[in-house]
Order: sequence, then structure tokens, then C-alpha cells
Amino acid sequence: MDQPGTRNGHATAAAPFDTARLDRLMGAAGLDLLIATSQPVVRYLLGGYRAGFFAHADAIGQSRYLPVYLYPAGAPERARYIGHRLESWQLEAEPPPVTHAEASANGSADAMRRAIGGYAHRPPAPACIGVEMPFLPADAHAVLRDAFPSARIVDAVPLLERLRAVKIPTEIDQLRHASEQVIDAMLAVFAQGADSTKRSLVEALRREQVGRGLDFDYCLITAGSSHNRAATDQRWNGGDILSLDSGGNYQGYIGDVCRMGILGEPDAELEELLAEVDTVQHAAFRAIRAGALGRAVYDGAEQALRAAPNRSRIEFLAHGMGLVTHEVPHLANRGNYAAEDADRPLEAGMVLSIETTLKHRRGYIKLEDTVVVELDGYTMLGEAGRGWNRGGAG
Amino acid sequence: MDQPGTRNGHATAAAPFDTARLDRLMGAAGLDLLIATSQPVVRYLLGGYRAGFFAHADAIGQSRYLPVYLYPAGAPERARYIGHRLESWQLEAEPPPVTHAEASANGSADAMRRAIGGYAHRPPAPACIGVEMPFLPADAHAVLRDAFPSARIVDAVPLLERLRAVKIPTEIDQLRHASEQVIDAMLAVFAQGADSTKRSLVEALRREQVGRGLDFDYCLITAGSSHNRAATDQRWNGGDILSLDSGGNYQGYIGDVCRMGILGEPDAELEELLAEVDTVQHAAFRAIRAGALGRAVYDGAEQALRAAPNRSRIEFLAHGMGLVTHEVPHLANRGNYAAEDADRPLEAGMVLSIETTLKHRRGYIKLEDTVVVELDGYTMLGEAGRGWNRGGAG
Repeated sequence: MDQPGTRNGHATAAAPFDTARLDRLMGAAGLDLLIATSQPVVRYLLGGYRAGFFAHADAIGQSRYLPVYLYPAGAPERARYIGHRLESWQLEAEPPPVTHAEASANGSADAMRRAIGGYAHRPPAPACIGVEMPFLPADAHAVLRDAFPSARIVDAVPLLERLRAVKIPTEIDQLRHASEQVIDAMLAVFAQGADSTKRSLVEALRREQVGRGLDFDYCLITAGSSHNRAATDQRWNGGDILSLDSGGNYQGYIGDVCRMGILGEPDAELEELLAEVDTVQHAAFRAIRAGALGRAVYDGAEQALRAAPNRSRIEFLAHGMGLVTHEVPHLANRGNYAAEDADRPLEAGMVLSIETTLKHRRGYIKLEDTVVVELDGYTMLGEAGRGWNRGGAG
Repeated sequence: MDQPGTRNGHATAAAPFDTARLDRLMGAAGLDLLIATSQPVVRYLLGGYRAGFFAHADAIGQSRYLPVYLYPAGAPERARYIGHRLESWQLEAEPPPVTHAEASANGSADAMRRAIGGYAHRPPAPACIGVEMPFLPADAHAVLRDAFPSARIVDAVPLLERLRAVKIPTEIDQLRHASEQVIDAMLAVFAQGADSTKRSLVEALRREQVGRGLDFDYCLITAGSSHNRAATDQRWNGGDILSLDSGGNYQGYIGDVCRMGILGEPDAELEELLAEVDTVQHAAFRAIRAGALGRAVYDGAEQALRAAPNRSRIEFLAHGMGLVTHEVPHLANRGNYAAEDADRPLEAGMVLSIETTLKHRRGYIKLEDTVVVELDGYTMLGEAGRGWNRGGAG
């Protein structure tokens, strides 16, 4: 493709997120400037805008695409967005809700230079700058450090998670749609699934998701008694059970569920095993309501697990989700984050992913569901297909 | 999804790239250690392996996916690959050709820590480390800097481009397939295209590419006399011309072409305008052969441009492509890279993207093609659909 000249957009709409909440979070953290550079977060701060050109691949020339959203504490009207030159037509056609937006950058360091260039002329220099450290390239970080040599540059990823922890109704609608469409795509794959390999089933799921308007993110898959979840050439044979655990993205919001299939009919043992998993899921669901502590979800599951015949083979997991597959609230120590929300109350509008996995000699048996925290309980996003889905029925 | 324990793979196959060439490039640059962290380059160094889980979205929890490939100069047998814990099943099922591979990391800083941890115990400490600066997160960069405080850390993106500048036959086959399938998807979209908007046409193209096994990267689109290339709600009306400029990816290799459509029949002026564009394209093609200087491609186009009636409205562009939309050879000063290959000879197996754009009052008229440099000329990858493609003919 060729590259257009720089163009500027000057939208003046109100910010599409809760700026008062962001200002409070920044105040508590001592930040006077925030610079977001990850695609999911910038998309959130721009009310859904993302550069279509770089939505799927971000390497270009000798650098990479870096969207830069700059927000001075307490001054939403001075927020700025710097995009790549190749998104100029989009910025012109659908300007995002930010006071200043321009499509001018070529590469990561250049984007940061332009973002700061338009900001720095307004004194005083920031003393503490929050960035998304894992999403800030080293060259852009060096530009920032050189521009503000006396500023502390700190990681603001947890703060930004906190900002978007409670989803508004339109976000819930997007999550519901994503979840329902991922499930619908799975049911189509189960139905078509005879004479397949794990690889061909994952490819079929990708096409089914894309055909429903989603971005396909990933699929973990098991077949038969194996617990290996990679998309290999293993066949889905008659009698085999199958697990599909997949994420798909609708307008920036993730559907992430796991459903079970079988080529044939489940016997009594398989029915019981899936029911055991489902019992744990529902025990966790029932513990969910606004005001309950985060740990209540694990406590609820634990109660069911104590009565579960296969409890030693069951793994339970609950975590926030939405724009990212794991986000606030963090309910358990896991991976690279702590259970920081275990002793905090759940809030209405938080969204949880609830997962129960039974690693059995018959195979990998799992359900994963998405639920919204409500004032008086919970709402499931996508309820279809939670039993044994017959393969090859399409 | 849940997360498995750490697993290690210990493949011993020979490296799938030219290690002698990499050693020469590293020697010339004074590098004693190379650390690649971008998905396209790591995929190349691992012979096509990529973590399916993170192929489409890399944010997870409070960090991001970072594949780390570490290569000590002159010691391919000490190369190491560190992936994320969630790719353990894939690594087990299809171990990549590298002496040591492990799926152990949680997040970007952790990945770098593990990559260095397994390397640093072998003295001496590296004096100069090459990294992909735009693809190295600031937190992982800090880990590297702290581990080797006396080492220089320099950008090796241009060196890595140089490593993969000449494509081997299997790579050419992948590029041909990508190019042909992108074109085939475009022809399907033109044929179905009646009663469409630019937005719906781009979405249709995405589905057509995915249905052909590609990853959809992007599509720039114009309709009618407008030169705005964003996917807006503008309708494709009867008589309107349409340009589709799109990239799609097959196994890591990019198809990137532009083709023209029309809803109706082109008149004589439109036929002439597209022929004028095609004449410039072919003048550039004819200048291509191994041994010719890079600038010969521009010189060839320039000769045709001097005779072109609309030369003042025509933009010509030629650049290397393959794993990234713009890569070595760099034939013109553009964006964030210089014309460093203008005075170097083209080599057989280099792949060029050739683009001619006529910005006319009738609309945006463009052809983009991919060609391979051959000993005695060039080969086009994907020749279909270079005329006016009738819309709504499907």
C-alpha cells in the first residue's frame, strides 16, 4: 500500500469513558500523565475506534504500529491520540471522541515523539508518567525517558484494568453477543464434525466465528482420552469426546467459553462426569452477587468440590474478563497477578469467567461460562450447548 | 482457559534458516547475542512454528505474550526458544527445530528472565546484544539491561530483515499461494458486490480470505470518485469504480495486491486510465532481474511515467515484501527507512511489491503486484484480475 500525507482530525465529543474515575485512580497513584499504547486499551479509551489497517498485524517496515493515547490528569480536554499515517482516511471518516486526533506517525518511536511533541510545550513537565510497560516498545520508552528525564515512568496496566472493571450495558451487550456467537460457532462445528482432525476442527471453528462477524482469537481442543489441547492431526474418532475452549472477539469484547461434544452417544458415566463439572459451575454461580467478596466465588465452588466424587482431578478457576481474557477482578493467585480482589466486594457490572475442568481417564471434560455480576445475583452470557453435543449431526 | 504446568521440548533438528549467513551478519555488526521477540521473525527462525494461542491476540492478564528466541553468535546449537505456558501442548505435539524449547513464561518480563536465565550461566557475558527494539517491551528490555549492565543493546531489525531478504523456493510457494488466494477472494467479492457498502465489501473480503485458509490482515478500499480508502458506509453505486488493496497471510507469508472493479461496464476513458497504470507496472517489471541495481526498478517506471498522459497524478512505489508488508530490499526513501538498497544489486529470490496509483477525478485507480527477482528477469505471483472486474456478476 502507499502512504497518504498527514491529516488531522479535531473531534470535540465527550470522552467515552469515566474520566472522573480515571482522574481518581491517577490521583491515588500519583500520576500526572497517562500514556496508553496497547490496542485493547486505546480502543476502549477511544470509544471503540481502532485502526482497521493494523487490527490483525502490526509489523510494518522496520518498526511496528503503535497507537498512542495521552491523557493529562484532570484534563480530558487535553487528551490526544496519535495514529499511523495509514489510518488517516479512517480518522477522517469516523473521528474518535478525543479533542485532538492525528494520523501522522511512522513506527513506534516516531509515534511517541509526536505524542509528546504536542504535549510537552504545556508546562509543567510531568513528575510521574503511567504507561503500559509490556505494551510500550523499548524505543518508544527511550523517547519518553529522554523527553522527561526527571519523571518517574511506572506501569499503569493494573490502573487501566481497574478503570474498565465495571462494564456498562452496551459493553455487556457486546460481551453477550461475543459469547453467544462463539457458542453458536461451536455448535456448528460439532454438528459438521464427523471425519475430522483436531486441526481441521479448529480451522472450521475459525471460519464459523469469522462468518459470524467475530475476530477469531484461539481454540484449545482435546479429543478422546488425550489431555493434549493443541490443534494436531489427531482424528476425532467414533465414541470420542471432544472439548472446544475458544475465544472470539466482537468489537473488542471477548467471548470465551468451553463446550463438550461427542461422536456418538454419551454413556451414563460421561453424563455423570459432565454433571459433576456443571454442579461445581453452578455452585460458583450461586455465590455471585454485588457486595459478596471475590473469594465467595471460590468458596462456593469449594463447597461443591468437597462433595464431588472426582474432586482430586478437578481444577476450578474464576477470573475477570472483558477486553482481555484475564482482567480485574483477580480472584486467585495465578500466572503473573495476585488475588488482589479476593477480599474486595464484587460490583454490579463486573464480568467473570468461571471454569471447571475434570481431567479424567475418559478425557478432558470442561465447562467455561461467562457471567455478569448483578445486584441480586448473576446473569449468564450464552447458555446454549452446555450438555453433550452430538458430533456429525449437521 | 486454564494454564498447564511448564513442559520442555528438546528437539535437535538443524536450524531452518541460514545460520552461516546470520553469523556473518552478526559478525559484521559486532553482535555476540541476538534476541528476537517479534512474532513474524520468531516464526521464521523456528521454521514456521508459531503459538496458535497467541496468533491473533497477545494481551493476557496484566502482560502480553512475548516469544523469545535467543541466538549466541556462531553457536546455533545453543539457540533457545522460550514460549508461554499456554503453548506447552503445541510445543509437545510439534516441537520446533531449535535445540532447547520450553513453554514456561507468564508475560513479557518473565519470558525475558527465563530466556536469559538459561543462557547467562555460560560465560563470557555478551558485550553487544541485538534486539528488535520496536518489538521488545520496556519491561523485558529492563530485565535484559539489568542482567547485562555492561552490554550495549542495539536494534537488530535491519539485520534480521537482511537475513531473510532472499526467499527460498518453499517461501516463494507460500507467497504465491497467499497472493493467488487474496486475488481469488477479491474476484469473489467483486462478483457478489452489488448492493454493498465499502464496509460490507471489506467484511466480505475478510470472510473470503479466511474461507481460503488465510489470515486476513487489512483492506484499503475506494468507491466512485472518492479517494478515501477507509471502510465506511459509502455505497458502491452503479457505474462506480472500486479499488481493493488488501493483505492476507498464509503461513506467515503475505499476499498484498490491488485490483479494480466496476459496477457496470468501463468506458473508453477508464480502459485507458487502467492501461496507463498497467504500462507503468510493466515498465518496472521489465527492469527487474538479478544483478540489476535496486534503483533500476524506479528508473524503469520513470521512463514509462515520462510518456504517461496523467503522470502528475501518478504515484509509483516499489519495495521488498514477504513476512512484513515492507521489508528489504528498500528501494526508496519512505516512512521510517532509507533507500539503502537502491545502489545494491537485486538478488534472485528477493520479492518485490510494485504499486502504481493514479489519483484521478474518476476515482482511485491502482494496481499492485508481487514479483520475484529471477536470474533472467522476474516472475509474477498471481496474475489474475488485472483488468476491470465487473461487479455483481456472481
